[in-house]
Amino acid sequence: MTDEHIEVLGLGNSLVDLFAHIEEDFLVKESMQKGAMILIDEERAEQLYKRMGPATIVSGGSAANTIAGVRSLGVRSAYIGKVKDDELGRAFIHDIRASGVKFDVTPAANGPATGRCLSFITPDGERTMNTYLGASQFLSPSDLDENLVREARIVYLEGYMWDRQAAKETFQKAARLAHAAGARVALTLSDSFCVDRFRAEFLDLMRSGLVDTIFANTEEIRSLYQTADFKTGLEALRAEGVLGVVTRSEHGSIVVEGEATYEAPAFPIDRLIDTTGAGDLFAAGFLAGMARGADRVKSAKLGALAAAEVIQHLGARPQARLADLAAENGLAV
Amino acid sequence: MTDEHIEVLGLGNSLVDLFAHIEEDFLVKESMQKGAMILIDEERAEQLYKRMGPATIVSGGSAANTIAGVRSLGVRSAYIGKVKDDELGRAFIHDIRASGVKFDVTPAANGPATGRCLSFITPDGERTMNTYLGASQFLSPSDLDENLVREARIVYLEGYMWDRQAAKETFQKAARLAHAAGARVALTLSDSFCVDRFRAEFLDLMRSGLVDTIFANTEEIRSLYQTADFKTGLEALRAEGVLGVVTRSEHGSIVVEGEATYEAPAFPIDRLIDTTGAGDLFAAGFLAGMARGADRVKSAKLGALAAAEVIQHLGARPQARLADLAAENGLAV
Repeated sequence: MTDEHIEVLGLGNSLVDLFAHIEEDFLVKESMQKGAMILIDEERAEQLYKRMGPATIVSGGSAANTIAGVRSLGVRSAYIGKVKDDELGRAFIHDIRASGVKFDVTPAANGPATGRCLSFITPDGERTMNTYLGASQFLSPSDLDENLVREARIVYLEGYMWDRQAAKETFQKAARLAHAAGARVALTLSDSFCVDRFRAEFLDLMRSGLVDTIFANTEEIRSLYQTADFKTGLEALRAEGVLGVVTRSEHGSIVVEGEATYEAPAFPIDRLIDTTGAGDLFAAGFLAGMARGADRVKSAKLGALAAAEVIQHLGARPQARLADLAAENGLAV
Repeated sequence: MTDEHIEVLGLGNSLVDLFAHIEEDFLVKESMQKGAMILIDEERAEQLYKRMGPATIVSGGSAANTIAGVRSLGVRSAYIGKVKDDELGRAFIHDIRASGVKFDVTPAANGPATGRCLSFITPDGERTMNTYLGASQFLSPSDLDENLVREARIVYLEGYMWDRQAAKETFQKAARLAHAAGARVALTLSDSFCVDRFRAEFLDLMRSGLVDTIFANTEEIRSLYQTADFKTGLEALRAEGVLGVVTRSEHGSIVVEGEATYEAPAFPIDRLIDTTGAGDLFAAGFLAGMARGADRVKSAKLGALAAAEVIQHLGARPQARLADLAAENGLAV
């Protein structure tokens, strides 16, 4: 493996985020569950956009955010996902490449527009997401660059991909190829509603060995094991025999791996602006550490550092060079 | 005039802004003059975009920013400008309407894409702009809703429109209609390079009486009268017999009107993030005050308040409700 090889590869839904600030009562009026991501169709996306305030457009997509963060930490990364060849799709491709991430998937010439996430930020910095998957759901196994999958040390997949058949098959193919090549296969559970939709399948992914590393937050763990008690859920995750990496917002993170448990605190922030991307960027830091052979605690600290940067501005991709931040905090990888 | 009538109407180049943070040496490498706005063609726009980092997309356009600010201060406003019927054009229209601004110009079905401004933010918060006018330059006199022009109390025009013939003719027609209806006609000189391109014509606009109010900053005044001495320039502006409104960044603003001179300080800020839109939003505050019959000092204070809001975040449109900020500071109109 030469220095030019990819270290971390991500697969996910390729979305642009449209952000607007709203008051709490907007969520009530639109019957939105605060903090959740729900899928919407094109018609609802159009309606909702009409009722949305002036919007800031930035590239998003959970795994894409993570991979941009991995690269910002100085770790070579690539991303696989589908956009359409339209203006927003071109913006997505521009941004991911401008971040230094390898991206070579041919955009769709026809079919639905590039996927978008209408993201509503309440005054407390929480975001509520309405996603129209658009072109992203048509990522198919033929879009997989098999050599790219084989050269990665870690392949990272987002649970959200499970919402559509073609994307799901791509996920499975990538996971099999990666394991065959000796790489780690990590899955983020994405959000508790996503877990609720695919509980049995996500459990099966771990139990069949197709996935060896799980990223989740406390809500997702509770949803996965249908328990109100986080500790019970965490022990159930440990018993799966996977590497379990669980974020707990301002309470830091906890990693379970066989008998071992590791904890790391959250990273201090000046001002919370927008929680969008906190989980994505925590995963970025952890994956970057893991790819470079850092121990679990250092990897979790890197996750906390990356998450802290992204919640202090609007948008879910890093704006500072995370490698510099890491070095300043004695966490260079 | 009923309460439903428009109070302030703006005409300008309809652009979306693509922002990226850069280091100073990028400007040197790309031979860009810091702080300036230059026009670029489509090919250069493509090249430059390729070399630009991940970009945040927000609606912009100088007069459009101003008019969104006027509306945010609670004053009824409308905007006239041209976009193409493409994704960025639809985003522009969405944003201006979502701000509560009346906008009814039919987007172009063919021709160049919606105009865009590649805006590079250096660590000191200064922005250097490269504008591809695209569809905006094809705003033509037939796009003018004459009834809208006639009902406005103030018609506000941007100097940047002078760069293209069709837009310039639209500008002239709007100014004539507005004066015939007894409205004020205000012009922003836009930037010192724009003044340099059109010095004689801008002077003629004042001297012929087509424009009665001028917005400018110190650089633009120096450029207009080709003097290194600001005071000399200011007195020359006073001698034109127009209402002259001049901003001086952190030194506040100065208004000359016949024998009278009014001054107002800058509004305090916590943290300078991005100067984009400072002049646009100063004009918004001043116009909102003027439209509601506020005196010059109060209008200038409103300008300072609106400018202070916009330089404390990325993007040139207000994110807070300016009417609330004004009320909190005893400046309600």
